[in-house]
Amino acid sequence: MIKKDVLGIRDMSKEDLIEILDTAKEMKKIIEGEKISDILKGKTIITIFFEPSTRTRLSFEMAAKYLGAHFGNIETKTSSVVKGESLIDTVRTVERMKADVIITRHNMSGAPHLMAKYLNASIINAGDGLNEHPTQALLDLMTIGEKKESFKGLKVVIIGDIVHSRVARSNMWGLLKLGAEVRLAGPATLLPKTFEKLGVKVYYDINKAINGVDVVMGLRIQLERQKSGLFPSKDEFVRYFGITSERMRLAKKDAILMHPGPINRNVEISSEAANSGYSVIEEQVTNGVAVRMALLKLLCERRKNNENNY
Amino acid sequence: MIKKDVLGIRDMSKEDLIEILDTAKEMKKIIEGEKISDILKGKTIITIFFEPSTRTRLSFEMAAKYLGAHFGNIETKTSSVVKGESLIDTVRTVERMKADVIITRHNMSGAPHLMAKYLNASIINAGDGLNEHPTQALLDLMTIGEKKESFKGLKVVIIGDIVHSRVARSNMWGLLKLGAEVRLAGPATLLPKTFEKLGVKVYYDINKAINGVDVVMGLRIQLERQKSGLFPSKDEFVRYFGITSERMRLAKKDAILMHPGPINRNVEISSEAANSGYSVIEEQVTNGVAVRMALLKLLCERRKNNENNY
Amino acid sequence: MIKKDVLGIRDMSKEDLIEILDTAKEMKKIIEGEKISDILKGKTIITIFFEPSTRTRLSFEMAAKYLGAHFGNIETKTSSVVKGESLIDTVRTVERMKADVIITRHNMSGAPHLMAKYLNASIINAGDGLNEHPTQALLDLMTIGEKKESFKGLKVVIIGDIVHSRVARSNMWGLLKLGAEVRLAGPATLLPKTFEKLGVKVYYDINKAINGVDVVMGLRIQLERQKSGLFPSKDEFVRYFGITSERMRLAKKDAILMHPGPINRNVEISSEAANSGYSVIEEQVTNGVAVRMALLKLLCERRKNNENNY
Repeated sequence: MIKKDVLGIRDMSKEDLIEILDTAKEMKKIIEGEKISDILKGKTIITIFFEPSTRTRLSFEMAAKYLGAHFGNIETKTSSVVKGESLIDTVRTVERMKADVIITRHNMSGAPHLMAKYLNASIINAGDGLNEHPTQALLDLMTIGEKKESFKGLKVVIIGDIVHSRVARSNMWGLLKLGAEVRLAGPATLLPKTFEKLGVKVYYDINKAINGVDVVMGLRIQLERQKSGLFPSKDEFVRYFGITSERMRLAKKDAILMHPGPINRNVEISSEAANSGYSVIEEQVTNGVAVRMALLKLLCERRKNNENNY
Repeated sequence: MIKKDVLGIRDMSKEDLIEILDTAKEMKKIIEGEKISDILKGKTIITIFFEPSTRTRLSFEMAAKYLGAHFGNIETKTSSVVKGESLIDTVRTVERMKADVIITRHNMSGAPHLMAKYLNASIINAGDGLNEHPTQALLDLMTIGEKKESFKGLKVVIIGDIVHSRVARSNMWGLLKLGAEVRLAGPATLLPKTFEKLGVKVYYDINKAINGVDVVMGLRIQLERQKSGLFPSKDEFVRYFGITSERMRLAKKDAILMHPGPINRNVEISSEAANSGYSVIEEQVTNGVAVRMALLKLLCERRKNNENNY
Repeated sequence: MIKKDVLGIRDMSKEDLIEILDTAKEMKKIIEGEKISDILKGKTIITIFFEPSTRTRLSFEMAAKYLGAHFGNIETKTSSVVKGESLIDTVRTVERMKADVIITRHNMSGAPHLMAKYLNASIINAGDGLNEHPTQALLDLMTIGEKKESFKGLKVVIIGDIVHSRVARSNMWGLLKLGAEVRLAGPATLLPKTFEKLGVKVYYDINKAINGVDVVMGLRIQLERQKSGLFPSKDEFVRYFGITSERMRLAKKDAILMHPGPINRNVEISSEAANSGYSVIEEQVTNGVAVRMALLKLLCERRKNNENNY
């Protein structure tokens, strides 16, 4: 049972994950239906992102609004952070405007954990440095859960720039907890062999990695990182690790293709593959709203039951 | 009857225009009254502007809120577009968060049409390149309709930088469809004679153009375009094409003065003229909210009746 | 009784202040309770800040939303102001979208007064140049009122960069009207002796200033102003005028410590002092929402009773 905050998948139990995914299923009925609810009436949800993100912020915003909450957003470009205020002071100020849940993204790993320690408001981590991006993993798990009968023994491959990806980390924790077999694939420069200590298999050959899997998950390549002189260049990445329709044929017949977006078409995934019937990329977006609604609902319920404890 | 999208006035019928203007009249009662309505309760309206515009965005935002819709806005400066995502992927992501209507402005003519083709959500064009700005034209038509008995035979002159103006184009189509006589006036460098093929009259002498008209419509001069060496300079523009109280006396006694805003006072319109009793510039702003409410209402009604068709 | 606008504390009567503070007390019950109200249902509240401020904007936004109003915000970076539109035209456009209350911050003293003169909408000054920041003073007064039995004879010291502080000015007016004794303390370069003409005492020695007071109020030092060569440097300021736990011991035993935020910790206030039990800095933030709710409520009530007068 999740408690005050949602900071990462690593610290969740299998039961936590199941509770969230079950709640998200209920929430999806609301957004596929009338989109009217007063479950969070009178609750205050604030997003404060220290790294820019429109997509994730809008997803949380819509989740809050579909549940009838008060919503506010702080753009940190223009915020007091610029004026030299401390992180905790900034977030506490938001809290004292009667925020129930504060959602944050920060380029420093652990920033949301620091906030959670010093605040009574519930904190949701919307991505911290290279550490975790739990709501992305939850929406990915929800999407897999909709398409596959069970996580038990499910073969999932995550492909790309693993070492710089908090999405990969959160998914890895979640998939392992639910009993899936996790494969990581990418160039050795972006995927240290030491990952194997965490209970996953590391592949440097995408064809072998993709062979016989149920789920293929691409990651966004941050082209700004692929500076000249580094291996692989963009072209090399496409040739050796790009997900194409041909390579998808190596996976199981009913395999699905996922990506957290935004996609660099014809870099990490060919445009043809992204548009194919096995692609569930757009469903992931809808499920993102559903899992965020679920987290907001669960956290606010917990707050109600523990009003004097925080 | 407008259908899935509102992309331009050129493709509308006279009946479409009348339906919208009649609906806008009803909507105006709401905003001049209690500003409370649940006509769009549970509907999701998102603005995503690839060109900055506060005024138009706020007008759509208030229209959505006055009708009780969920509203969200994406600032493209911070959005995934920066990260190299394709236009269609960006907008489709918004759609998959359960947007019913997406309102967009883009510096490329035709961008909203491209979106409309690939999306199930309804698209409203809030200005595309040099092509159209249909909601501006609709609010202009509504304002004229409030002040004049009939469009039939009404003489309307549009003055200024016609060639760069999507406002002029949309108004031209709308006015012609409703039976008005349209005159265009401006320096030859900003108004090619070829416009006459479209069924309007071209004037290079503002005094002749304004003579005997019912409606005088100014356009914003984009001062950033008036580079040195080009004719006319700002001063020349003011002298030869500026709308002044004196020149307004050449129009009919009950002529009205319009401008889409923001005004460069004492450039395209003298401050005195803008403040005179014949100026309906501020009423245009209020009508902007009303026509946008009307479009949102009509599009959402059409969606309800065609849920399985899009 | 406040009327159409809230432009400054200087022009308020003692009765105005008491009415606002009493109303804010009622409003605080809403935000400490269910945060659900429809007191401002159908009212339109718009913030338009010509100087950046996230904290104050969000406080007004939450105040409006907690009362059930329609809320909109204009970022002036992207607004028509950039395109050369006049201040009054910009704000009037917002008004004509049916704004009831427009909240503005501007780097020019008197800008809100100019708007108030030309607009029917109610204007709230959220800070104008070096002139006033009335809502900050009101939340400070509310916070003092919660902690102290009476303003009559209360000793309050305001410390820091007085000459550049609109917060100090507004507080000074408010405290004097309510019968408090006001002391100002700071380096002579930031606190001209002529302030004494206004009925306050000027101190250049913080220890003497703080001696025996009931309330210690710090101000944010704008570090960007402390250019090299000027007295005092940041280090000198900390040494001679920084508020520390030791210096707080010179005040009355039950003295409280206030700061408008954002704080430069260990500059104007030591981190230890800011975190001590006598610090009411976080309560000020909550009260900021309450006084802003009170102003919105009172202004909208007045509008209802005077619909034909504005």
